[in-house]
Amino acid sequence: MKSFDFTCTKKDKHSFARSGVIHTPHGDIETPAFVPVGTQATVKSLTPEEITDSGTDLFFVNTYHMVLRPGIDVIKKFGGLHQFMHWDKPLITDSGGFQVFSLGAKRFARKNEDGQGEASLVRISDDGVTFKSHWDGKEYLFTPENSMQYQNDLGSDIHIAFDDCTPYPVTKKQAEKSMQRTHQWAKRSLAAHKNGALYGSIQGSVYEELRVASTEFITSFPFDGFAIGGVSVGESKKEMEQVLSWVTPILPQDKPRHLLGVGEIDDIYTLISHGIDTFDCVQPTRLARMGIVFVDNQKVDITKIEYEKDIHPIDDTCQCYTCKYYSRAYVHHLFHVRELLGYRLATIHNLFFVNALVREMREAIGNGTFPRYNKERR
Amino acid sequence: MKSFDFTCTKKDKHSFARSGVIHTPHGDIETPAFVPVGTQATVKSLTPEEITDSGTDLFFVNTYHMVLRPGIDVIKKFGGLHQFMHWDKPLITDSGGFQVFSLGAKRFARKNEDGQGEASLVRISDDGVTFKSHWDGKEYLFTPENSMQYQNDLGSDIHIAFDDCTPYPVTKKQAEKSMQRTHQWAKRSLAAHKNGALYGSIQGSVYEELRVASTEFITSFPFDGFAIGGVSVGESKKEMEQVLSWVTPILPQDKPRHLLGVGEIDDIYTLISHGIDTFDCVQPTRLARMGIVFVDNQKVDITKIEYEKDIHPIDDTCQCYTCKYYSRAYVHHLFHVRELLGYRLATIHNLFFVNALVREMREAIGNGTFPRYNKERR
Repeated sequence: MKSFDFTCTKKDKHSFARSGVIHTPHGDIETPAFVPVGTQATVKSLTPEEITDSGTDLFFVNTYHMVLRPGIDVIKKFGGLHQFMHWDKPLITDSGGFQVFSLGAKRFARKNEDGQGEASLVRISDDGVTFKSHWDGKEYLFTPENSMQYQNDLGSDIHIAFDDCTPYPVTKKQAEKSMQRTHQWAKRSLAAHKNGALYGSIQGSVYEELRVASTEFITSFPFDGFAIGGVSVGESKKEMEQVLSWVTPILPQDKPRHLLGVGEIDDIYTLISHGIDTFDCVQPTRLARMGIVFVDNQKVDITKIEYEKDIHPIDDTCQCYTCKYYSRAYVHHLFHVRELLGYRLATIHNLFFVNALVREMREAIGNGTFPRYNKERR
Repeated sequence: MKSFDFTCTKKDKHSFARSGVIHTPHGDIETPAFVPVGTQATVKSLTPEEITDSGTDLFFVNTYHMVLRPGIDVIKKFGGLHQFMHWDKPLITDSGGFQVFSLGAKRFARKNEDGQGEASLVRISDDGVTFKSHWDGKEYLFTPENSMQYQNDLGSDIHIAFDDCTPYPVTKKQAEKSMQRTHQWAKRSLAAHKNGALYGSIQGSVYEELRVASTEFITSFPFDGFAIGGVSVGESKKEMEQVLSWVTPILPQDKPRHLLGVGEIDDIYTLISHGIDTFDCVQPTRLARMGIVFVDNQKVDITKIEYEKDIHPIDDTCQCYTCKYYSRAYVHHLFHVRELLGYRLATIHNLFFVNALVREMREAIGNGTFPRYNKERR
């Protein structure tokens, strides 16, 4: 057995949905799987044990944030992020490309595509991207080569090729130029890559011709899996579904696919039915910290006065730690008085809820009941 | 066996230190014991399981805060605080008297002893205290009778008689008047008390004559234990020790003593050597949230740059969850980027540290080695 491998265990007959297992040096990931985001080497407020207890197999960390704080040299001293943050299960890092986008989003609008605009914190060239850190003004260079080096030093199980994450909205011409750069960077990423599995990154914005071209180009290289990028940057949910409908049918069946930055509660059925294996999203944990908890696929604001004396758990049917031991009234009280435990209890619940929802779909695929699941739950 | 009882298991031969067990309906408390403060029905950032794992037997909640938020009626719906906050071990509540002090501290200085000062949020009379809530301006009345009713509704194992917590500094005449009021309120507390153990409250400020008189008066009533109040309001550590030297030798040997609001790391040996059984203090948890952690009885600021790359645990010899799995560098990083997990990990360590320190002293008393312990550690 290779140290990294994907086994598809079942394909749905009525959609592109599939279930499977990704094998990594740090254990298996049952797919489809939701992937919580630990931006700064922590899934906000939780310990790794709580993340695991919520049903999580794979943890997502942003390379960009690690480069800034604490710095790659700190994590190298520990032999990698696993040891640094006490996580011994599979780990995925991104390329840093999305943060290029976040900081340079307006580059086309400002007509400083090649980074000459003086207001921008970012300069993009064919070689790579120069950032000014948003918190101390220090300058950093990201290239395919050092993104690969960073991810290698972080020791994640799954790395992502350095890409130029295309902003939105964008003209087709601009999107094509950005895609071409992603393709050049993909080849350089592959050449520079050392350990760990490497996923190629597919761009092309909302243009069918470009998405198809990008998929064909990227899948012609020996990547271990594929990441679909640029779908969380402002498109409508309709456009997101269109992109998936162009890309996933022509992806190789024997390799895993990750959808970057998408996975709100009402996206999950759609992306799984299009054959996505793993997907990361901050929504469940971010909403939790605002006091928004999931109950039966709905968002409930636990800070509302109506929950002040509610002795029931957030969700009567939920098996999470929060619902086992605490009432809505207690969680409401903690948010009301801004106690840290409130953020934790809500985060534990939301993460458990999303993982349970995805597990339910995974099992439905396995049982051949996914279309029925669709009718009942959608 | 009574539902509440105290057994003294060992007395030190060279000091007033003693070890013992307080039996309560929710289990035993091995004494001497540190008592963490869960002001708002939560020991900030921790779950009850983490509090227990840190070696804590007894949890302290402020009645005043419960009255304001979430309100006693909410907690009554749950049948008490134990159920509300998922804590099934012993629980102690205070009378609300200390908050009278906190809000009305300057009452003597302002010459509005009887509550006529217009700037004050509090009006004190022989009947009781009228508060204006510091957060919504709503008015609340605290009397011995309703303090007893509140604590009964909260369902704590140990209640404290409603007292007039004497401010500091104070003239002897003012301290005596305040003490007399505490004594009248003690009798009314005893008459109004229903369930749970009730501790009488001893006041008298820094005046030997008054402290002795208060101890003699309060111990002449059938309280289940005694709380020493007014020692955390601004006196020096020297004065604190003097107060203990007057009071504890004349307390009954067969009943437990609680010292209210004292227990900084360098107070602990002193108060235990004076025969205190339990004591509550916010210092270990409050310092933790500022990034100050205990290492070998010293305070270490983990946010300092020197810990940025330190791969060692906070304390190599510590058995707490934080020291088992995390480095100084990781905790430093979490504080640096203001991640919630940092507050948790530091709080877990500090609470474990204080409980271990007190357990060490408890065992030294049991082994007859407390004076040696003193020489080595003080």
